[in-house]
Amino acid sequence: MAEGLKKCDLCGLGAHDHNRDKILHEQPILCPCERKTSDKTERRELTDAEIHLATRYPDGSVRLRNPNIELMDQDILYHLALGSGSHDLVEMFGDVKFVCMGGTPKRMEQFAYYIMEQIGHKLPAGTTLQDISKYSYRYSMYKVGPVLSISHGMGIPSVGILLHEVIKLMYHAKVKDPIFFRIGTCGGIGLEGGTVVISEEAVDGLLRPYLELPVLGKLVQRTAKLDKRLARDLKSMAEPSQLFETVTGKTMCTYDFYEGQGRLDGAFCEFTEQEKLEYMEQVHKAGVANIEMESLSFAALTHHAGIKSAVVCVALLDRLKGDQVLAPHEVLEEWQERPQKLVARYIKNYLAMKGRLSLDGHSGSVPVLSPRRYKLVQQESETYD
Amino acid sequence: MAEGLKKCDLCGLGAHDHNRDKILHEQPILCPCERKTSDKTERRELTDAEIHLATRYPDGSVRLRNPNIELMDQDILYHLALGSGSHDLVEMFGDVKFVCMGGTPKRMEQFAYYIMEQIGHKLPAGTTLQDISKYSYRYSMYKVGPVLSISHGMGIPSVGILLHEVIKLMYHAKVKDPIFFRIGTCGGIGLEGGTVVISEEAVDGLLRPYLELPVLGKLVQRTAKLDKRLARDLKSMAEPSQLFETVTGKTMCTYDFYEGQGRLDGAFCEFTEQEKLEYMEQVHKAGVANIEMESLSFAALTHHAGIKSAVVCVALLDRLKGDQVLAPHEVLEEWQERPQKLVARYIKNYLAMKGRLSLDGHSGSVPVLSPRRYKLVQQESETYD
Repeated sequence: MAEGLKKCDLCGLGAHDHNRDKILHEQPILCPCERKTSDKTERRELTDAEIHLATRYPDGSVRLRNPNIELMDQDILYHLALGSGSHDLVEMFGDVKFVCMGGTPKRMEQFAYYIMEQIGHKLPAGTTLQDISKYSYRYSMYKVGPVLSISHGMGIPSVGILLHEVIKLMYHAKVKDPIFFRIGTCGGIGLEGGTVVISEEAVDGLLRPYLELPVLGKLVQRTAKLDKRLARDLKSMAEPSQLFETVTGKTMCTYDFYEGQGRLDGAFCEFTEQEKLEYMEQVHKAGVANIEMESLSFAALTHHAGIKSAVVCVALLDRLKGDQVLAPHEVLEEWQERPQKLVARYIKNYLAMKGRLSLDGHSGSVPVLSPRRYKLVQQESETYD
Repeated sequence: MAEGLKKCDLCGLGAHDHNRDKILHEQPILCPCERKTSDKTERRELTDAEIHLATRYPDGSVRLRNPNIELMDQDILYHLALGSGSHDLVEMFGDVKFVCMGGTPKRMEQFAYYIMEQIGHKLPAGTTLQDISKYSYRYSMYKVGPVLSISHGMGIPSVGILLHEVIKLMYHAKVKDPIFFRIGTCGGIGLEGGTVVISEEAVDGLLRPYLELPVLGKLVQRTAKLDKRLARDLKSMAEPSQLFETVTGKTMCTYDFYEGQGRLDGAFCEFTEQEKLEYMEQVHKAGVANIEMESLSFAALTHHAGIKSAVVCVALLDRLKGDQVLAPHEVLEEWQERPQKLVARYIKNYLAMKGRLSLDGHSGSVPVLSPRRYKLVQQESETYD
């Protein structure tokens, strides 16, 4: 760093960036994250342009809003079973473009195989996908070329830990302009089961559009913004099917599945059905299309990191009509594929436009000449002692 | 219900209970959960005696503070893959006395086999433990006689969903006076890695001793009390070892692992090391012994349900000294067994006092006559083609 120029403690931007910032804004501000007013430092939220400056190196690769990481000897991504000193993260993850997250390990393993088929990704003969974070026993992570498919567990804290570590992973791997998706399930508000909801923004249980988190004993608020253009692009790719609708709307994110979502069927219930319905109508009128448990953290942390992101969920029921999910298993399985299909379509389109799509038709690890004969060989092989 | 007596909408207590309550308290209150003051109903927290009344049937079995459940045709415990209409829950779980919860499926599977050995529980020949909630793909649940061992995932929402469903499971199974334990890991405050902490109470990131949750758009607060006697009993059973200490103290429960716990090594960090250390010293002086991510919900929901509970965690590091967990894998493995051993000792003692301990020496599913020969037979068997 040039002599005499101080590095910002708060956002990690160094002197070089301060100068870039000064030039861009044509005003002598110290750093995008703070403004000196007489003797006290007043923090404010950065504009989108400032966030971009603070979160990207000139080549588009991810930089962290934390000056400590680059000074560390090694950074252990504890909950992913990866480390910057133990793994060649650039070699392993440098080609990643899309990070897709969803609740359960099983669903994200399914998505990994589905996206492999969709983008025609080939694995070398004799190999199969492996859960990269297997030894964390917390999250599952699969990599299919430019796509990561990761389970995030349930709730804001669980997805929050994952986001911190995946954003750091993007930094260590020098990934350029990644795009994050959450694909999940939700309760619909005035929407039939099976409807796909693309979130416009996330709000909390009090309808506030930010994540509030105690940090060092003080409440910090982070705007829960999602990328408007990405949401629009996803909507435009929705299947014009007669079977189900794809809508956009606000997503309410709660800290609890039962009382927090106004359910009458938890271990406790201290409100009446009438009070519940009035509340559901109230949030419906406020533009809330669905309720789930991760979007607030997902939107707030990706926005803070300057990462484009979208939340696509399928409604498992209409909360104006009930609390328990009663659709048969096979129906639920098909519904859960809908957000996956929409996001896969976006990824396929994107890669096709960039000329990165494998078009030679192989899917999975084994080049198959004839599916019928392939199956026969497998079956015959099984019958040998 | 006797004619002319109204059932309370809020706590679910019926007329019979109102009368019992009236007799107990010798005052004409309407219901333990509300007090009429002129034209408005003022809710207050129940006393411990009132909670006991609201959460137990005369025979000691669990009753719910939710009048809706008994009116439902069937109650699906969605995240456990169980249901009151599909499973004979009394037959399956009626003998449960202890519910032990911890973070990962792997750890709780290990605990299940460990407690099986400790209490001398026998499985029928040719059987092994099975993950009861396997098909939920969310939590893992193992049953070893009177002990349930369940993984709760990470964070307040994840353990909260589980608690709602496990408390309902206790009700459906007519379990009498169950005792819940959380066994986990934490960061110590001024405590060496390996120290075991028994929580006296749980506080949030602002040091408030309650869980705050938006319900129907209003903030509800639930006292995060743990059972004092149970904590004392556990402490008295701590191994008088020279190797590590077992202490009691307040447990701070946060919604985030990085910024929420004042770590310098997240994807974001907007405070200095000095500010972090000052905060850690401040919470240390306030009596906080450790920080983790589930105790607040665990304490608040079990207390609200009138269920005795304790939180026993091992510190993986001293947060006054650092942020990253650096102890070798084998050391961490041994540390993580310490809370398990303490809780197992309590359970073993309890069952011995009640004459419910199997003392005939078998552990696991196969009665072993000679461990050496048993092993030889296994090895020989493996070498046959």
